[in-house]
Amino acid sequence: MSIYIKVLSLLILGVLLTMCATAPPKVEEIDVGFCISCHQERTPGIFQSWVESKHAKKGVHCVTCHIDHQAASEQKSLVFPEKCGECHKKQLAEFRKGRHSIAFDRMRIQGEYLGIPQEIRAAFCERCHIIEKKCNSCHTSHKFSLVEAKSPDSCGSCHLGPDHPHKEMYETSLHGTVYKLTQNPERAPRCVTCHMAKGTHDSSFGIARGPVGTRSVVVDMKEVPISKEEEERKREEMIGVCKGCHSRRFAEEQLENADRVKEEGFKLMEAGKEPIQEIEKEGLIYPSIAERMPHPTEGRALVLADPQLYMGTSHIERLFFTMFKFHTIRVWKSGYHFSPAYTHGFGWTEMQLDLIDIKEEAERLRQMLREKKKQ
Amino acid sequence: MSIYIKVLSLLILGVLLTMCATAPPKVEEIDVGFCISCHQERTPGIFQSWVESKHAKKGVHCVTCHIDHQAASEQKSLVFPEKCGECHKKQLAEFRKGRHSIAFDRMRIQGEYLGIPQEIRAAFCERCHIIEKKCNSCHTSHKFSLVEAKSPDSCGSCHLGPDHPHKEMYETSLHGTVYKLTQNPERAPRCVTCHMAKGTHDSSFGIARGPVGTRSVVVDMKEVPISKEEEERKREEMIGVCKGCHSRRFAEEQLENADRVKEEGFKLMEAGKEPIQEIEKEGLIYPSIAERMPHPTEGRALVLADPQLYMGTSHIERLFFTMFKFHTIRVWKSGYHFSPAYTHGFGWTEMQLDLIDIKEEAERLRQMLREKKKQ
Amino acid sequence: MSIYIKVLSLLILGVLLTMCATAPPKVEEIDVGFCISCHQERTPGIFQSWVESKHAKKGVHCVTCHIDHQAASEQKSLVFPEKCGECHKKQLAEFRKGRHSIAFDRMRIQGEYLGIPQEIRAAFCERCHIIEKKCNSCHTSHKFSLVEAKSPDSCGSCHLGPDHPHKEMYETSLHGTVYKLTQNPERAPRCVTCHMAKGTHDSSFGIARGPVGTRSVVVDMKEVPISKEEEERKREEMIGVCKGCHSRRFAEEQLENADRVKEEGFKLMEAGKEPIQEIEKEGLIYPSIAERMPHPTEGRALVLADPQLYMGTSHIERLFFTMFKFHTIRVWKSGYHFSPAYTHGFGWTEMQLDLIDIKEEAERLRQMLREKKKQ
Repeated sequence: MSIYIKVLSLLILGVLLTMCATAPPKVEEIDVGFCISCHQERTPGIFQSWVESKHAKKGVHCVTCHIDHQAASEQKSLVFPEKCGECHKKQLAEFRKGRHSIAFDRMRIQGEYLGIPQEIRAAFCERCHIIEKKCNSCHTSHKFSLVEAKSPDSCGSCHLGPDHPHKEMYETSLHGTVYKLTQNPERAPRCVTCHMAKGTHDSSFGIARGPVGTRSVVVDMKEVPISKEEEERKREEMIGVCKGCHSRRFAEEQLENADRVKEEGFKLMEAGKEPIQEIEKEGLIYPSIAERMPHPTEGRALVLADPQLYMGTSHIERLFFTMFKFHTIRVWKSGYHFSPAYTHGFGWTEMQLDLIDIKEEAERLRQMLREKKKQ
Repeated sequence: MSIYIKVLSLLILGVLLTMCATAPPKVEEIDVGFCISCHQERTPGIFQSWVESKHAKKGVHCVTCHIDHQAASEQKSLVFPEKCGECHKKQLAEFRKGRHSIAFDRMRIQGEYLGIPQEIRAAFCERCHIIEKKCNSCHTSHKFSLVEAKSPDSCGSCHLGPDHPHKEMYETSLHGTVYKLTQNPERAPRCVTCHMAKGTHDSSFGIARGPVGTRSVVVDMKEVPISKEEEERKREEMIGVCKGCHSRRFAEEQLENADRVKEEGFKLMEAGKEPIQEIEKEGLIYPSIAERMPHPTEGRALVLADPQLYMGTSHIERLFFTMFKFHTIRVWKSGYHFSPAYTHGFGWTEMQLDLIDIKEEAERLRQMLREKKKQ
Repeated sequence: MSIYIKVLSLLILGVLLTMCATAPPKVEEIDVGFCISCHQERTPGIFQSWVESKHAKKGVHCVTCHIDHQAASEQKSLVFPEKCGECHKKQLAEFRKGRHSIAFDRMRIQGEYLGIPQEIRAAFCERCHIIEKKCNSCHTSHKFSLVEAKSPDSCGSCHLGPDHPHKEMYETSLHGTVYKLTQNPERAPRCVTCHMAKGTHDSSFGIARGPVGTRSVVVDMKEVPISKEEEERKREEMIGVCKGCHSRRFAEEQLENADRVKEEGFKLMEAGKEPIQEIEKEGLIYPSIAERMPHPTEGRALVLADPQLYMGTSHIERLFFTMFKFHTIRVWKSGYHFSPAYTHGFGWTEMQLDLIDIKEEAERLRQMLREKKKQ
């Protein structure tokens, strides 16, 4: 413990002792000692983390962010980005340019979210999408350590799993491998090296994809497709990062290679749609679109690919759900993340197996119809 | 190497040289020098690990635990918890209160275990369930380092994989992420922080679930359902741990949220049982329960959920096997471990897909029956 | 930065300044200063890595390996093992004894490779199989740090994923767990401890398996089955490594146990083939072998297990593909890597589920035939 912290602790203790002997202070008089008089004992972990923070050293304490006891209680201790932005102006402005800042609002209109029982949503989508309302999604409270925020593990606490395995793709790439080995961001890039270059909080830096990455159009924050020029500008941003280690030629080649992987991946995905579209025209889908619950945002329609849902559909549609949502995304996103295991083994291979399954299921459904007609 | 170790090594060498010149000692005379005369060369890794152990510093040597050469050979070098308990009395008593201490015995009566060819069982279940007989399952021999034993990786060498991905759920939670980043158990909890609080070796501390976690009833060590009061006492134990960092209100909310996730998960699982139970009543399961090998512990019955097996059943039962054994457990256990990726992506989503598959398979089997009847 | 590097940098700067004032040098005159005059700015990451390398300290610089600017450009900066072997003779000779040295050539004749669109192959198989042509597959350029090359993560950047999860099996074994915990190769083995014992670059050391590990015969570098004696010699090599920590008896028992696991795994795989072979004889496979694209290397034949492909086959064959390619290999290889999670949960369990699916699909195809005949 540094001498600074020791002195600080003594000062705090002094304030604390004074507080104990007096009446509860008015809001404008609340200082760190008032909070600590209870919270050092009630939530020692939080207190300790704050003590180790830069905030503690700079005099930013409980009520600076939590306003007062009642507000903290009513807001369930949430501190909104606007509050952080009072000091961190540049970061807030950048944050608002990226999709992180609309993550909660966008989530709330998704069919997937609406299909989850309301009383358990907090353990599902919300736990990550809350990033819209919480800088401490990445800047883990109450230490707010930059080392923690910049680590791939920090990004990876949300960007992982079957439908967006960014963490897994990075960790199985040479970039991720060398970083894990050396823990040296000069030796190999972390997520933030490329996606929050030079510390920008605009998470759309350098990438030309819209939400989820399962759509063919690339959209901006207002869901409007971006222009060819904008796409090229973003590619140039990214190459600017690659050039820290690689030649421009190499970087361009790698990204163009990934472009082709993306194209081939989407092409294979389209091949998976065809048998289902035909089967649907022939009236063979069970339960039929007329019989079942309408899609919460698309109504009574055959929805293949985004915003297709994982529940209440037929088996053949569900085979496609896995193909588009879990496997297509692995193929093309790991093209850009340079993970052959995800491009090929976990992606392309699974897509090919999906295609076999979809075709055979279509044939089965047709055969069933033929039997019925014979009767 | 500390000066202590150097001096110890010299002493050992002295004893060793003396040993070499004399006849093999009687059992009661065996000391470390006798063992080392061969084993320093034959098993240098083991010797080196022991040298670095606290045991070496305290004069606990080979025969203290392994008794003598014949016993060590006959017991295949296993040292049973009773032996460790001669010194570590409190730990042994606590250990016996938790299910770790009945892991091998319980395993031996499971159908799954009985279904694996006898000659390969050692590479399967036994490698972990042997914890009943081996403190060095966690306290990795022969260094017995506390740092190693307390690490999440130590617990994770058994608590992982499709049917109990505790390691994966922890690692994808914010708790696991911050611990991985900081390696500081004051900053974020490890497995032992919550499940072996304050060093208890009673692994049932604070948790109110029976074996495997796929049953709806919660049982104690004698497989007897525990009382509501006992459940509440255990919840209070766990909140006591949470309060190290969080407010009581926050901890209660989080655990109650997880309770609801568990309920919804089990409800969805029940929805998966229904079509199969109906199909079975209609006599449509193939191979039928009458035709096939009886369940090793349940006999000729439709077994859905624990102790359902993964072999020799029909396709529709196998679809439910995956649903209950791999996916339901991810939903509710990651509710309590705060991993949205496992609750939603790897859990809930997969359960919904399972449900689609089960329903369609039930319809297929019915359609097949209708065809047969028409003939 | 060491004083050595500082002096070196000054010398380089001197050479650099001299270079700038003169005409472009002839090839034989190219020295490090010429390269650095541009590349320190253009590819600072690469320059920095080289500065930290042993090469830099020993006077091995850009053109020592890359020959000259034109060659570097034409070869896309690839430096072939033959070049490295000019100094590292022993390592090159050893490298040539193992399958790493034929990885690219063998890949080029595989049906799987040929089935991937040519323009994206670089992001797939080639990214790993290029090891034949690149020592810096493991010795990550341009630092060529031994710590990096010897790490399990280095091996794991290729040896992972659904069809060869060596990394995952190691990491979930006690060996991998203790190494992760301690980062001490004296405490627990890394991949290279057993497979490149004492630094050999012959990656076939101690193992008696041919490519991929899905065939029952064990072949050498020329695809010729190896003799019983050769197998025994290799077993003895491996036991020699185990003995560093374990007794010979223990090591032999563990490997014989793994032999049995392998046998049982292959036996179960054969059980999966039978229903498909029968179905094929009965002419029930759809699309039939006559109707569909011939196998690129095996022609119009039912190919079950290696070199079976993942595309264009029937659903029942695809079920077997997953069984042999992803699940059988997990069972037996993790037998030798001592990972119960992969042997049982991710392997044996999945194989049993595959078998149920294959049998039911065979029955479904037969039922379909019966219906057709009735018409």
